[in-house]
Amino acid sequence: MTSQETAEPVHVLVWAEHVEDQSNPAVREIYPATLHETIAEALRRILGPDVAATTATFHDPHQGLDADRLNATDVLIWWSHLIDDRIDDEAAERVRHRVLDGMGLIVLHSGSLSKAFRGLMGTRCTFMWREGNDRELLWTVAPTHPIARGVPHPVVIPVHEMYGEFFDVPEPDSLVFVSSFTGGEIMRSGMCWSRGLGRVFYFSPGHEEHPIYHQAEIQRILANAVLWCAPQPHAFATDAWPARETGWFENR
Amino acid sequence: MTSQETAEPVHVLVWAEHVEDQSNPAVREIYPATLHETIAEALRRILGPDVAATTATFHDPHQGLDADRLNATDVLIWWSHLIDDRIDDEAAERVRHRVLDGMGLIVLHSGSLSKAFRGLMGTRCTFMWREGNDRELLWTVAPTHPIARGVPHPVVIPVHEMYGEFFDVPEPDSLVFVSSFTGGEIMRSGMCWSRGLGRVFYFSPGHEEHPIYHQAEIQRILANAVLWCAPQPHAFATDAWPARETGWFENR
Amino acid sequence: MTSQETAEPVHVLVWAEHVEDQSNPAVREIYPATLHETIAEALRRILGPDVAATTATFHDPHQGLDADRLNATDVLIWWSHLIDDRIDDEAAERVRHRVLDGMGLIVLHSGSLSKAFRGLMGTRCTFMWREGNDRELLWTVAPTHPIARGVPHPVVIPVHEMYGEFFDVPEPDSLVFVSSFTGGEIMRSGMCWSRGLGRVFYFSPGHEEHPIYHQAEIQRILANAVLWCAPQPHAFATDAWPARETGWFENR
Amino acid sequence: MTSQETAEPVHVLVWAEHVEDQSNPAVREIYPATLHETIAEALRRILGPDVAATTATFHDPHQGLDADRLNATDVLIWWSHLIDDRIDDEAAERVRHRVLDGMGLIVLHSGSLSKAFRGLMGTRCTFMWREGNDRELLWTVAPTHPIARGVPHPVVIPVHEMYGEFFDVPEPDSLVFVSSFTGGEIMRSGMCWSRGLGRVFYFSPGHEEHPIYHQAEIQRILANAVLWCAPQPHAFATDAWPARETGWFENR
Repeated sequence: MTSQETAEPVHVLVWAEHVEDQSNPAVREIYPATLHETIAEALRRILGPDVAATTATFHDPHQGLDADRLNATDVLIWWSHLIDDRIDDEAAERVRHRVLDGMGLIVLHSGSLSKAFRGLMGTRCTFMWREGNDRELLWTVAPTHPIARGVPHPVVIPVHEMYGEFFDVPEPDSLVFVSSFTGGEIMRSGMCWSRGLGRVFYFSPGHEEHPIYHQAEIQRILANAVLWCAPQPHAFATDAWPARETGWFENR
Repeated sequence: MTSQETAEPVHVLVWAEHVEDQSNPAVREIYPATLHETIAEALRRILGPDVAATTATFHDPHQGLDADRLNATDVLIWWSHLIDDRIDDEAAERVRHRVLDGMGLIVLHSGSLSKAFRGLMGTRCTFMWREGNDRELLWTVAPTHPIARGVPHPVVIPVHEMYGEFFDVPEPDSLVFVSSFTGGEIMRSGMCWSRGLGRVFYFSPGHEEHPIYHQAEIQRILANAVLWCAPQPHAFATDAWPARETGWFENR
Repeated sequence: MTSQETAEPVHVLVWAEHVEDQSNPAVREIYPATLHETIAEALRRILGPDVAATTATFHDPHQGLDADRLNATDVLIWWSHLIDDRIDDEAAERVRHRVLDGMGLIVLHSGSLSKAFRGLMGTRCTFMWREGNDRELLWTVAPTHPIARGVPHPVVIPVHEMYGEFFDVPEPDSLVFVSSFTGGEIMRSGMCWSRGLGRVFYFSPGHEEHPIYHQAEIQRILANAVLWCAPQPHAFATDAWPARETGWFENR
Repeated sequence: MTSQETAEPVHVLVWAEHVEDQSNPAVREIYPATLHETIAEALRRILGPDVAATTATFHDPHQGLDADRLNATDVLIWWSHLIDDRIDDEAAERVRHRVLDGMGLIVLHSGSLSKAFRGLMGTRCTFMWREGNDRELLWTVAPTHPIARGVPHPVVIPVHEMYGEFFDVPEPDSLVFVSSFTGGEIMRSGMCWSRGLGRVFYFSPGHEEHPIYHQAEIQRILANAVLWCAPQPHAFATDAWPARETGWFENR
């Protein structure tokens, strides 16, 4: 965005299932303000007037995913774990189509198994995992990528659940981070794709039993990702294709 | 495949909806042996004992897509146009899951709008099109790719329907061919993706009213694509992940 | 860049060989202010205080490529044609190393055959070409890419020299534009790569005998490209790798 | 290759500097038959009549890299460490141009710092390293890639030198393997690129003080890589571009 343009904040919706940070005392202690508010607050602090961050959860009307709310959202941040199967198919499809129409999507941790992400990827999105006491090191392999800006090399997550390969997703357009774990496993932990007119970033850190989203480096990555996948003003619009005498038609 | 190994033929199933090459006299004249048999016969002639090609159509029991048949298929070639919406959701999902488990898939022309291909891509797979009298030139932009082997630069298709960008598919793992049309449009006409353990090739030429699949260069491309996306013996198997004392689990 | 940060302009150096726009009356008429000043002026007009654009040419001391000047440059725009072989090897290597250290590089048209670009690509960077009266249509195939922002689909260049495939460059990290020509040829006309800590954009339009760089859509693409390949503040720095007790060393 | 075609063996030249496996008793003990003969012998055993493997070293006339020998080579395997700076510039350029003309190239371990590989990549090709007692685990992240065929997940290298990111190479066309080390570092350890008409595979395992190339899984990967990067019969040839009335010219 150039400085001459009127700065519009990026409208971010942080959506989380909000189950374990209610029902599990250990998780509630880590996220007393809830997981989604913790993330939203970090974005507000880092990005200031460049962001307008709101939150929603599975327990809201329409599972927090009604069309009006999604249509007003530039970037959706998604954290889910236990309730993936209970998300309405229509809600998942609304999310997927909003991405195809230009909304950014940041999928966190176990959210890879959500219907919307699986629908965008076309694959099973499964992986190896182990709850334990691994240390995760997150290395930058795409140093010119905007999501890696200001991120230490490596980011050290003192204790985390292991997520490992083979992670069944399509080859990413950009591979930004790769993680190692004490057990020796590796994970492509930060990956970018485009789908239609929208951008998608998957980021694997975020087990609810560890204070991942309180960590400054992780918050920096999320803020970078919001800016990276925000829809661009005056972006490509499929309905702007010019009519011409030879005639063309779009079959959608 | 190395010469020491016992040569197993690649089991190819050429599936086509078989509507216009029955009902439309103009198309029937171009493909008196049907579109699917024309392709199957070309593969048998070019690949000889390396291929065992059978055919199926929309009019067969289970729409020609029953589990037994798909499980016996190494590479599925798909041509559809008018009946995409009438394909059973379960049949489309069977195709998609077979790809994730390792089956190769070659999707032709308007088959980009089929449920199985859209499901694997995650996008709308729409594009511009115009029925007319364009000449299509198909240029190789990945000369080291096996699918481009022995293919002239350019391939000239004297008369063809225009398919043009923006073609709403994910960025391919490999872009092999790009076409131009007399009207000035361009199309990424040969693209490769991996999905799970399977390989997918989309190839845009193939309007039923022109004798595309009789053209030797086009047949060569299809034969190359069969070899490229055939599952490899001793390939990666997710169930071969070793058990280890630290324990790992796959959530699928 | 977030609005809280002090806005530093991007320091752009527009370098051109400045031969034909001196010696060839037809070219001089198209670019009375010179080709390089035309581009610099367009950037100033479009990007305003976000850019500080200066120019240099082959005829300057040190061929306009002395270390001090390059070190003060965030993004180098390069246009060359007749004097590629006369560029000092050391100057070309200075350009290449500045890119590896983070400088953005935009290479225009025949500049693909310059020593610096060839050195960064590792290939011959040759292509087909024909001087004629082709119309070039430039299509966007990566609609989410920042360089495509606000760019019509297609851009119409009424008359241009043909540049066509096979263009012998490495597979790009992102393919943004593909062009067609009246003769039926196609060209991957807008491509992105990273090299070390720097970003590179190649853009094929720009024959000196046609007023390409006066065209608003072309200027918009160049301005977008400047923002895309400008080094990011607080970007990844190889010397920021932490020392650790296990000890690691970088062999450079 | 189809079974009807006359099987021509792939002509592989295994080139190694042959210094430490002469002068260092510890290395000599690991590779009594020399490092290059160990690799060549493994290829002969695995690929049988599909390969014709010869060897050359730095100490041969013309450093083992004369034009006749390179012209007769389909796939060059390269291992270097101490003598990179002593390779003649002309010899390195001969290797690079042979790749551009279609020869496959497999670069091992410290060979990433050789002139020919750096010339093909355009970057510094530096990385982190530490001699120690790390265990390396090599994970497959591209299970459909031919080089991963029959390779366990993970390959365990009991003791190895650490090579870690950031590895300053261009984004690969395909990322096949990622390694972790006991120290927590990761390395993109198996990567593919095309350059011109040739294919390049970099594979990081191979420190001379550990018996890496005696390991069956490593030998399998090298054999797979030979088949993957062997030039294809009837491949794309730039001189096969047809002449047309509109006329086109290639500037090389």
